[in-house]
Amino acid sequence: MSILVLGTVALDTVKTPFGKRIEMLGGSATHFAMAATLFTKVDLVAVVGDDFPKIYFDFLRKKGVNITSLHQQGGRTFRWRGEYKGDLNTALTLETELGVLSFFRPKISECQKNSRYIFLANVDPDIQHYLLQIIHCPYFVGLDSMNYWIHHKRKSLLKLLKKVNIFVANEAEARTISGEYNLLKAAKALSSFGSKMVMIKKGEHGVLFYCDRFIFSLPAYPVAKIVDPTGAGDTFAGGFMGYLAKTNKITELNIRRAIAYACVIASFNVEGFGLEKTSKLTLANVNNRFREYKKIINF
Amino acid sequence: MSILVLGTVALDTVKTPFGKRIEMLGGSATHFAMAATLFTKVDLVAVVGDDFPKIYFDFLRKKGVNITSLHQQGGRTFRWRGEYKGDLNTALTLETELGVLSFFRPKISECQKNSRYIFLANVDPDIQHYLLQIIHCPYFVGLDSMNYWIHHKRKSLLKLLKKVNIFVANEAEARTISGEYNLLKAAKALSSFGSKMVMIKKGEHGVLFYCDRFIFSLPAYPVAKIVDPTGAGDTFAGGFMGYLAKTNKITELNIRRAIAYACVIASFNVEGFGLEKTSKLTLANVNNRFREYKKIINF
Repeated sequence: MSILVLGTVALDTVKTPFGKRIEMLGGSATHFAMAATLFTKVDLVAVVGDDFPKIYFDFLRKKGVNITSLHQQGGRTFRWRGEYKGDLNTALTLETELGVLSFFRPKISECQKNSRYIFLANVDPDIQHYLLQIIHCPYFVGLDSMNYWIHHKRKSLLKLLKKVNIFVANEAEARTISGEYNLLKAAKALSSFGSKMVMIKKGEHGVLFYCDRFIFSLPAYPVAKIVDPTGAGDTFAGGFMGYLAKTNKITELNIRRAIAYACVIASFNVEGFGLEKTSKLTLANVNNRFREYKKIINF
Repeated sequence: MSILVLGTVALDTVKTPFGKRIEMLGGSATHFAMAATLFTKVDLVAVVGDDFPKIYFDFLRKKGVNITSLHQQGGRTFRWRGEYKGDLNTALTLETELGVLSFFRPKISECQKNSRYIFLANVDPDIQHYLLQIIHCPYFVGLDSMNYWIHHKRKSLLKLLKKVNIFVANEAEARTISGEYNLLKAAKALSSFGSKMVMIKKGEHGVLFYCDRFIFSLPAYPVAKIVDPTGAGDTFAGGFMGYLAKTNKITELNIRRAIAYACVIASFNVEGFGLEKTSKLTLANVNNRFREYKKIINF
């Protein structure tokens, strides 16, 4: 099955101890798509401005991403400028320029309204909700958000949580929205808000998945050189949803494998700036590391 | 095989969001022994003052710990007073009273000098070194330390690292001593200092083991209520060394299993104050959680 992802397409300027990149192609939907296309067809729903470089359109098309719903409109493309220091765990946002994102209303084709696998990457929850309600018969819906929306649109977010199958959050977001410090308690609390499945991404510390039938946890795949973690969470979500959509069977085993694949693909993402590593990945590369990963945690 | 552990026996006063305990039995050697006795005989080498409560001697004896080398001398027992807040990840030391520990010189019996499995829990590296050199033919030696010694006795510690088989450190210690931020790089660097095996304990985030033949990593066993993490690292080391000494075969599989057991026993430790949980553990409790743990990470 194909996946429809709603999110951002951005121009990222990033500085880390390993260098700097100016106006790279980035954004939540882009990173998601790069991982998910390893497994299945991806429809990207986002907006860019009239300053968006043509080579990036070509790049996405060449990677097999369907960008018929990546709309271009008058104005500036969404830009993010950030820096990572020390352990590269926390991004310091230096500047966010919303540009055309501030008046974004997603538009999709009739055909895309029949999508079964949907991922609502981080944008305004009202926009996420709008998109979800024009989908005819969603089968498996994933949701990501961020602390800004948790604080400023909590009500919209809580309403949305009742309509999705899985909520994907990082540690800080899971703690803020649930009010629980302990991550297992936070995951339980979040699942009671509506989405039965909860995935807490812990960056270099791995992941915790919770649903009422089972708990799953993995350490991150150990990476010796983290160059730029930007987009790792979206890459993770793309790997997870991509594998599930490909199998098109939401079983416990497939969920576990999808999470392991997600960790593996995210581990490639952090090894290069932006999409440098993930855009060159083949499924063979991924499967090799997947097998290695299985060995690493085996006891 | 039995294990000889050198370390501290302390009176701990601990406050966490879940309550307060005054002058509980604690210390690195005590927590270590409580875990290791689940698997094998433990000889405890430490010092206490003449104020050390008789009930604690009785308690240790009853738990099967050989305390013939737990010497009592004139002066006050080592005391630690600390507090944990928020996520309980970091201890705030309010007071450390070394007492008799400040003039500790370990003494062991002739029979104990034949010990094959040795764990040098956190004390002055010169004391650790002194003990190690009176052991006739050590077979497998583990070493723990702390940031204080890394800063104040770096030379002694580096010398000692060449004489042990495994160095057990937490994240901060691994980073400080190696000068590497990335934990995989830190582990590699540490292993080049002498001890071929390196174990980095990451608290609620699990563990990373490194040796030149393989890498092993696990998330922590997910615990919903962390009551008091004091001694979790020593409990972890005790579980690890205890299992290895019991099998008496340093194979890759045994190392992996020893680490998994260590995680499991440490997960019990944090569920109660001090030794409340670990002192009541049976191997059956441990094996149940071990099987559960294996399921949690399975993909």
